Amino acid sequence: MTSPTVPGPTSTGPTSEFDRHVHTEPDGAGGYRAHLDPGWVVGGGVNGGYLSAVVGHALGQAVPGKPHVLSLSSHFVSASVPGPAAVRVDVHRDGGRTAVVGLTLEQDGVPRLHGLATLADLHELSDDVETTAQAPVVPPREQCVAAGDAPPEVLAAAPMLQRSHLLFPPGEVGWALGAPSGVARHGGWFRLIDDREPDPLVLLMVLDCLPPVTFQLGRIGWAPTLSLSSHVRALPAPGWLVVVQESRNLAGGYFEEDCEVWDSTGRLVAQARQLAGQPR
Amino acid sequence: MTSPTVPGPTSTGPTSEFDRHVHTEPDGAGGYRAHLDPGWVVGGGVNGGYLSAVVGHALGQAVPGKPHVLSLSSHFVSASVPGPAAVRVDVHRDGGRTAVVGLTLEQDGVPRLHGLATLADLHELSDDVETTAQAPVVPPREQCVAAGDAPPEVLAAAPMLQRSHLLFPPGEVGWALGAPSGVARHGGWFRLIDDREPDPLVLLMVLDCLPPVTFQLGRIGWAPTLSLSSHVRALPAPGWLVVVQESRNLAGGYFEEDCEVWDSTGRLVAQARQLAGQPR
Repeated sequence: MTSPTVPGPTSTGPTSEFDRHVHTEPDGAGGYRAHLDPGWVVGGGVNGGYLSAVVGHALGQAVPGKPHVLSLSSHFVSASVPGPAAVRVDVHRDGGRTAVVGLTLEQDGVPRLHGLATLADLHELSDDVETTAQAPVVPPREQCVAAGDAPPEVLAAAPMLQRSHLLFPPGEVGWALGAPSGVARHGGWFRLIDDREPDPLVLLMVLDCLPPVTFQLGRIGWAPTLSLSSHVRALPAPGWLVVVQESRNLAGGYFEEDCEVWDSTGRLVAQARQLAGQPR
Repeated sequence: MTSPTVPGPTSTGPTSEFDRHVHTEPDGAGGYRAHLDPGWVVGGGVNGGYLSAVVGHALGQAVPGKPHVLSLSSHFVSASVPGPAAVRVDVHRDGGRTAVVGLTLEQDGVPRLHGLATLADLHELSDDVETTAQAPVVPPREQCVAAGDAPPEVLAAAPMLQRSHLLFPPGEVGWALGAPSGVARHGGWFRLIDDREPDPLVLLMVLDCLPPVTFQLGRIGWAPTLSLSSHVRALPAPGWLVVVQESRNLAGGYFEEDCEVWDSTGRLVAQARQLAGQPR
């Protein structure tokens, strides 16, 4: 799934930063050992998209012949912290083209998230594509603003911003200067910092890697995810991704956030919806 | 939550058809007994929205003070059939404003769906509403076509159509005559057949009550749901609901389907996204 020009995991260990950070190993008792890297901290915890990718790495080993997450539903119960973690997996059904598993990500026996996943082999999907969604229009990268150029205090609070090239249209970063757009939608270019090519695990992470769209409404603050439903719909082509996120319904203290990821060929390769708590 | 003019469940048993059909009772061992009514069959199984409402009824008894589903994620593993069923519930976390539970709907020990739910008390949600979504424009009811007027052979295959008043705009039923619209979006008016007023359980059902939007693309056939993520965002007002559904990404043998439910005051009260298998 990685491009031939980019080294993937080798027998001496994964070479890209992302591969090292999402790596899990069987614990010999049906579960998987992980180590949550401090590089993915943002605000009060470890990023939920990164947790999805860690879970996805474990799930990739759980059911023979079904290495990919097609659909992952996570309900979060406590904030993760950097350090050791364990992924427990129960195979509920394995038959036909898909398998369904239950899972829990824990730290020191404390559950962080409970999940359900439908697994498949994305190589086996039909070539039939009738997508009607139009690829978002994003300005050329050289006209965009890099999240990694944020002030040092922002990068210190959100080291996750240094894991990728994340480039926003100039018109969508006004919130950082006290002039939010007022429209709960934003997006931009994405590529891992060491140019590691996208694959389904990267997509799981990218589906929850942007700042909350509530920033665009002037609500700057942590928006804790209650539940996150991620669909990986195709193996992405190598190259830059475009990720866009929007909300239609901010009400009652919660908002939904829909995310789409498009690959370099202009194909919609992943979608997610989350329910999050509204920043105060 | 029911209107004063419509009788709700009483001590002698639920009086509305819907209340009777979704009713569950504790089994004394931490689970709940249900009976899946044949009236909700559609195509090859029992409707997934109805199953969500049955599950929602059981969950309403599971965690004191948190009677409502805020977010429900279900992954389906086998087709349900009319008859006895059991809902097993494990409380994973109960704290603050929400609780997270795991659940399984089984029949004769055979799992039908595995779920995770975040529960809350919808009465306690803040009055803060900044929804930017615009209510869909649906023609007046007297200009619409009733699903219940479908030919007898259709009603026989889909008795579920007789559970409600489901009124479609004339321009969106061309698929039934071999002239699909070609746009993967449809919607209409909804009200339970006996005028039982909407509440959060009804919303859970309505979020998966329409024919697959793939009908609008001329693909008439069963579209099995793999996973369904439902958000109930507010207590609905009495009266007719409007339900709309669309898909942006039909590809690789699967499609996502987003559903919105609006109440009689024009408020967006529920949202869902599912991943379904594409009809052949």
